[in-house]
Amino acid sequence: MAPRTEEQELQEMDAWWRAANYLSLGMLYLKDNPLLRSPLSPEHLKKRLLGHWGSDPGQNFVWVHANRLIRRHDLNMIYISGPGHGAPATLSNAYLEGTYTEVYPDRTEDTRGLKNFFRQFSFPGGLGSHCTPETPGSINEGGELGYSLSHAYGAVFDHPDLIAVCVVGDGEAETGPMATSWHSNKFLNPVTDGAVLPILHLNGYKIANPTILARISPEELKSLFVGYGYKPVVVEGDDPAEMHRKMARAMDACLSDLRRIQRNARAQGVPVRAPWPMIILRTPKGWTAPKEMDGHRIEGFFRAHQVPILDAATNPGHLALLEQWFRKYRPEELFDENGTLVPALKALAPKGNRRMSANPLANGGLLRKPLIMPDFREYAVDVSNPGTVEAENTFVMGTFLRDVMKQNPRNFRVFGPDETASNHLQALYEVTKKAWMGETRPEDADGCQLAPDGHVMEMLSEHTLEGWLEGYLLTGRHGLLNTYEAFAHIIDSMVNQHAKWLEKAKTDVSWRAPVSSLNILLSSTVWRQDHNGFTHQDPGFLDVVTNKRASVVRIYLPPDANTLLSVADHCLRSTDYVNVIVADKQPHLQYLDRDAAARHAAKGIGLWEWASNDQGEEPDAVMACCGDVVTLEALAAVAILREKIPDLRIRFVNVVDLFRLQPPSEHPHGLSDRDFDSLFTTDRPIIFNFHGYPWLIHKLAYRRTNHRNLHVRGYKEKGSINTPLQLAIENQIDRFSLAIDVIDRVPRVGVRGAHVKEWLKDQILEHLLYASREGEDPPAITRWKWPF
Amino acid sequence: MAPRTEEQELQEMDAWWRAANYLSLGMLYLKDNPLLRSPLSPEHLKKRLLGHWGSDPGQNFVWVHANRLIRRHDLNMIYISGPGHGAPATLSNAYLEGTYTEVYPDRTEDTRGLKNFFRQFSFPGGLGSHCTPETPGSINEGGELGYSLSHAYGAVFDHPDLIAVCVVGDGEAETGPMATSWHSNKFLNPVTDGAVLPILHLNGYKIANPTILARISPEELKSLFVGYGYKPVVVEGDDPAEMHRKMARAMDACLSDLRRIQRNARAQGVPVRAPWPMIILRTPKGWTAPKEMDGHRIEGFFRAHQVPILDAATNPGHLALLEQWFRKYRPEELFDENGTLVPALKALAPKGNRRMSANPLANGGLLRKPLIMPDFREYAVDVSNPGTVEAENTFVMGTFLRDVMKQNPRNFRVFGPDETASNHLQALYEVTKKAWMGETRPEDADGCQLAPDGHVMEMLSEHTLEGWLEGYLLTGRHGLLNTYEAFAHIIDSMVNQHAKWLEKAKTDVSWRAPVSSLNILLSSTVWRQDHNGFTHQDPGFLDVVTNKRASVVRIYLPPDANTLLSVADHCLRSTDYVNVIVADKQPHLQYLDRDAAARHAAKGIGLWEWASNDQGEEPDAVMACCGDVVTLEALAAVAILREKIPDLRIRFVNVVDLFRLQPPSEHPHGLSDRDFDSLFTTDRPIIFNFHGYPWLIHKLAYRRTNHRNLHVRGYKEKGSINTPLQLAIENQIDRFSLAIDVIDRVPRVGVRGAHVKEWLKDQILEHLLYASREGEDPPAITRWKWPF
Repeated sequence: MAPRTEEQELQEMDAWWRAANYLSLGMLYLKDNPLLRSPLSPEHLKKRLLGHWGSDPGQNFVWVHANRLIRRHDLNMIYISGPGHGAPATLSNAYLEGTYTEVYPDRTEDTRGLKNFFRQFSFPGGLGSHCTPETPGSINEGGELGYSLSHAYGAVFDHPDLIAVCVVGDGEAETGPMATSWHSNKFLNPVTDGAVLPILHLNGYKIANPTILARISPEELKSLFVGYGYKPVVVEGDDPAEMHRKMARAMDACLSDLRRIQRNARAQGVPVRAPWPMIILRTPKGWTAPKEMDGHRIEGFFRAHQVPILDAATNPGHLALLEQWFRKYRPEELFDENGTLVPALKALAPKGNRRMSANPLANGGLLRKPLIMPDFREYAVDVSNPGTVEAENTFVMGTFLRDVMKQNPRNFRVFGPDETASNHLQALYEVTKKAWMGETRPEDADGCQLAPDGHVMEMLSEHTLEGWLEGYLLTGRHGLLNTYEAFAHIIDSMVNQHAKWLEKAKTDVSWRAPVSSLNILLSSTVWRQDHNGFTHQDPGFLDVVTNKRASVVRIYLPPDANTLLSVADHCLRSTDYVNVIVADKQPHLQYLDRDAAARHAAKGIGLWEWASNDQGEEPDAVMACCGDVVTLEALAAVAILREKIPDLRIRFVNVVDLFRLQPPSEHPHGLSDRDFDSLFTTDRPIIFNFHGYPWLIHKLAYRRTNHRNLHVRGYKEKGSINTPLQLAIENQIDRFSLAIDVIDRVPRVGVRGAHVKEWLKDQILEHLLYASREGEDPPAITRWKWPF
Repeated sequence: MAPRTEEQELQEMDAWWRAANYLSLGMLYLKDNPLLRSPLSPEHLKKRLLGHWGSDPGQNFVWVHANRLIRRHDLNMIYISGPGHGAPATLSNAYLEGTYTEVYPDRTEDTRGLKNFFRQFSFPGGLGSHCTPETPGSINEGGELGYSLSHAYGAVFDHPDLIAVCVVGDGEAETGPMATSWHSNKFLNPVTDGAVLPILHLNGYKIANPTILARISPEELKSLFVGYGYKPVVVEGDDPAEMHRKMARAMDACLSDLRRIQRNARAQGVPVRAPWPMIILRTPKGWTAPKEMDGHRIEGFFRAHQVPILDAATNPGHLALLEQWFRKYRPEELFDENGTLVPALKALAPKGNRRMSANPLANGGLLRKPLIMPDFREYAVDVSNPGTVEAENTFVMGTFLRDVMKQNPRNFRVFGPDETASNHLQALYEVTKKAWMGETRPEDADGCQLAPDGHVMEMLSEHTLEGWLEGYLLTGRHGLLNTYEAFAHIIDSMVNQHAKWLEKAKTDVSWRAPVSSLNILLSSTVWRQDHNGFTHQDPGFLDVVTNKRASVVRIYLPPDANTLLSVADHCLRSTDYVNVIVADKQPHLQYLDRDAAARHAAKGIGLWEWASNDQGEEPDAVMACCGDVVTLEALAAVAILREKIPDLRIRFVNVVDLFRLQPPSEHPHGLSDRDFDSLFTTDRPIIFNFHGYPWLIHKLAYRRTNHRNLHVRGYKEKGSINTPLQLAIENQIDRFSLAIDVIDRVPRVGVRGAHVKEWLKDQILEHLLYASREGEDPPAITRWKWPF
């Protein structure tokens, strides 16, 4: 057989495109008669018409052209679908490539399978209109817009042969996270990373509006992307044949550019940033839909966004228009009499794992190699007596992370918004640097820690970092994000969405292998943001996380460095969780030696005997705490009370694993009621000093036996420019206020208690006075140590 | 006297700049000897050195040049300080302009006042290192980065003579919200709006890294801003005299460009988008700091970010360097012997309200005119029998908003991410359009609703919308943001920060007049996102809001259109709150007529007698609900129970104002314990059907007498592609599950109850089956009406 001409190939590709468009349209409309073997009639139509047509044909177009490149060059390529509600495109191509049937065997490649495939789309219990975790080949859900490009970059870091084709919708292009993520190219190393081929799909409209980028001048548009560091190639038009030719040329040019950049850099071993190729694909919205209906434009207009013809079941004219639309794709040429894609088209799909719908990188858990882990105990701080030595908890963690980094050089990255050193993880720089492909200057050598192959990722965009990390994890690697606690709220929604992805993947998608957990270290926490003031004080990220399903969220508040080490070790080994660790960067007293800390972290909650004086009897009160600073204050309160009222029996309980507080029916980490009661008693007052907003503890523990005696202190949204002690006092988490809390709740201390309370109140005033005069806390506070 | 030459003026400006720099430096270091009248010695230095020098000199430079323009052209100008921690610049200029002393009379314009002024900066109880609400002339805190430009645009909308000079830090320029907010110029009408003059301050470094925009080529940089629709003028250098000349020329050119654009548009009355001028100001970071110390570069490097010399108190060499730095500004030329700014410099400040530090627009409450409000009752739906007619709640609200818009044409805007019509507020388009200064096409006329002077603001960036709205409110106007409920999390952090601004302004800043509340309508809510699936289901924004101080947050969940009208009316009249309203857009049953609804909204919580059958006696159970969909299901459950077990006595309570559930000690809206107990009883089971995550109700009500019998249903993070009923059942907020909940908790229903429970379980199965088969809910559900 003579080799196909280019024109023949493009014609075949057009046929694939028609097949994919046909399937996308079928998903929106058909519950029966999937190949229109009989005339279309109302009973073939779904009753509830849901889904989105708008970006489907454009995405199908990109897919078929990506496949052409894969076939020609045997590429390792994945597809990231950015435009919202564009799942029909990915699903159609996964079905045409046979992957869908491999993954879901009852969706066979025949008329019956096709009927089920159509029916289940946007049907109860079926497929969503975004690329949900159920979608083979996808790592970007797209229900919330703006993260496709950062996911794409995250995916290609440390995957030097991978190319991520990332279709960016012109709607999502208006979001902030997307607008800044174009700059990811300043962090991509052409030697050791793969490449992203962004395709801005300019189809002109959102739900009901034109898009900004479709309505600026071509010069501005080009300028914008040149400014972002790309070399844009414009592919514009609506005539399919001509567009196929243009797109093929553009894709060839981009691949050749991209390979040239990589080849040059790799040959010389010197990574230099060059303008990476990208495509601006300008097509009509809802391309190939009917031009108009009842005088209203459809193709190329916002009316093509969702389901353009809604009343076909009751309006015969519209039914005919719909049928005509379906038949325009000539399904009879595309599928054989069984309803199977004809062999000539089947041959267009890349083979096996080269299919983008089957690329194992889009099911990264399959490729995940566990981290090689140093023994975290070896990084432990020496603690011979509890509460007498100080260490910077996150600094110690940094030494552990350093060696994790060292032993897993292309499998682990640490992400942070310009704050990795500020959060005291600087030991990392002993073994790696910050990724940087921008210009450098000689003075940078004095402390900037920049290198093209650095594995610490810093950019002042929590959104981009979180997106990179998600992309990195979902393609089988490991990582940790560190950020200022208050500003974790910036990515509330992204973390929510990732948790939802994990929830679904874990529960409903058996073929998805577990991926490494999303580890978030909140440092520079509320209680040490006294000097940065009110805006930097917000421990509420935890509240957001506790709303997600118990099967995927974990929260740890280790009181000291050794416990933090153990928690970090656990989190880095785990899969399919969102792990949140709260640990401050400032010097803190250390309480537990390496073994005690490991045991404490494993139990997640524990009675500290050395701090208690109830000797196994029922105490007068329980002093509980969760968090580093609040633990110190709780201990200091106990010390005061033990000194001033020696016969007062206090039990000291520290909580590391926040979900231990919930009943086991609510969270797998929940402590049994029996254990809870034995720790917290059933009738004694509990003073609970909590790192975050106090009511979170009630939210978790409201069903516990002794909840009525649970008195929680925490951040009450009171702060300005303070000293740490002033901030603590304003929110009543300080030692003096806690001691008063105990006295108030133990009537038997009587007059003695009243005297001590007066003394405590005086202490508060005196200490406040000192701080206001000196601008810092008194030595009695800053140099306090556990006295027993 | 001969007129000053330009060069003389620039020299005087340089002196002002030196004075401002001197003050900024003094704030970081000095607690005494403010004008260095004696040699600098360690006891003059603050003990705890806090604050940031990095962007101060650059911002002082911009300020003095803005003042030059104001003087020359009598401009109405405000200054928005974007770079984080740059408050010393704004504070210094406010002090030099005399505003600071006017606002805080004890900070006098003399040595004593200056000493206090220095001392209070970053000192306990004093001034923050960002532009906190205490800062005269500021509407942008800057503690969290990325919102300065959207604030600036929000400020100039509908202020045709206003120019906002907005200094954007190159750190914050990396954030997503900033990166997309440059596109705000596509929404700025040169005829009816003012102008923003963005000044990108490229000082090269963040805390510890170079910035992206400082390390791309000049061509890329320029391209980027041309692409964003600006005409960038670059001012670059480090020699002060030369830089003053360049900057003066650049500012003149920008003003002239800007005025030309406005003049042309206003003369013709036809607004056309033109490239707006902007300045790229490239200066050394920490400009004028010592070049280096101990071989480490300071000026022009990241080491100038915070306090560059930290050990001056103990290192005599460093003390000398610091003194030399101070004296370089020649304070003796700038301040007279009393410590007052010399008259020649004083004369450089604009007069009165023309001073940017005193512009009343930066204290917008002063200028706020209450909205002219139509009577909301006139928009009421006719409800003769409760629960028998349907209406789209937000559509009805839209008709009210339409007339608010009509009666307040330049004082009210509605903001939404491409979803104002999708959220069914389309009645607004009868009186206004969507602001749009991009290109238009003929087909847009068919439904896009675009106009240059539209007052509905749509862009697919929740961040930009929220920023615009905040800027609009803080400069004295009114507005409302509508958004999909789940995606409100995108702006969690912005709303947090705005709430913190209000908390401070209200509590600690007596000179700030109240501004209009930030009104947020959450529509397209969780229970009607069954078809959009799991990603669109997240009612957790309320949890975030409840963490803010009770004095500034309000949450309303009106059950029907008439109650929503009353709530909307209340919110639009209010000041200094964040009001969150949750109301769905789909058709819902209507319960209360206009008067009953107004009474119910005013009370915020109430017993619905028509739905109850306890006739004033103690009921067997209380059915409570809060939210539209959950109210319907609760009512349907009561109807089932009343039909099947007629002697069961049920009390029906509906909650509109969520904070009624908290004790009055926690929130001013809190119901007294007595009223709470009388509504909810002290010992009967309460089934509470809640719109959001169920534990939020416990968080609010855990101290109530009958909390132990409070059983809450809500969204439990269970959903996929469903029908509304399936989604309800999965989360057990549906009528059948609620009826079972009641039966389970009222033992006296005995065997009868057991039979009904079996029947209810069958109903669940049958209805699920129907939905799975038909793809929609059965008519018994969708057409249900209150039967009594």
